[in-house]
Amino acid sequence: MARPDTCVNIAEKLAKVTEHWSPKTVLEANGLEFKAVKVKGDFVWHNHPEGDELFIVVKGELTIELKDRPSVVLSAGDMFVVPQGLYHKPYAAQECEILVMDPPGVVNTGAASSSLTADEEWI
Amino acid sequence: MARPDTCVNIAEKLAKVTEHWSPKTVLEANGLEFKAVKVKGDFVWHNHPEGDELFIVVKGELTIELKDRPSVVLSAGDMFVVPQGLYHKPYAAQECEILVMDPPGVVNTGAASSSLTADEEWI
Repeated sequence: MARPDTCVNIAEKLAKVTEHWSPKTVLEANGLEFKAVKVKGDFVWHNHPEGDELFIVVKGELTIELKDRPSVVLSAGDMFVVPQGLYHKPYAAQECEILVMDPPGVVNTGAASSSLTADEEWI
Repeated sequence: MARPDTCVNIAEKLAKVTEHWSPKTVLEANGLEFKAVKVKGDFVWHNHPEGDELFIVVKGELTIELKDRPSVVLSAGDMFVVPQGLYHKPYAAQECEILVMDPPGVVNTGAASSSLTADEEWI
């Protein structure tokens, strides 16, 4: 799907997301993909050798555990970059709405294939 | 300046911006820079041959006039990509707070040097 040439409203896209941990691509810029994601509970430890992963929290609170580094706790309006290759595990006690930016082709669970691995899909 | 390894709060960064049309870099991911910008009034027609420019409106309303295409009007939570090279002119009747993503080294006025041309600066 080509990059939309109309504006994309983040809340409208997130409202269409019905499953947790199932990123939906909403926009592409400079070869990077922005994905709307709803998360709740524990994700799996994984990494992305393809590049950095940017998290922007839209609603709620997201904890990201990081290998050999202190965890970070992100609230609405917070941005955080998980550096390329670094193992991390997101967690949200309550449902949390986020925007994630990745290089194309990145799988949500990295190489850690699990029941939470999602196919790429645009909304 | 290296990418911060702590979280970046968008509103806190925008609160530090005192001038209009003067982007302040707050974060880098996958070689792209995110900049906090306050805008008000008319900007100049310009383009960015280096890459796409992503606008995310945090507060207020932003109009972007586009060469040979319909203008877009963006409100809080809207995202829009100005494709690489396309001439555009942002405008905001009232002060508007935005986040912009560009490749490194992009000048806010492109090749259209003017009194609004800003130096790159991190906050």
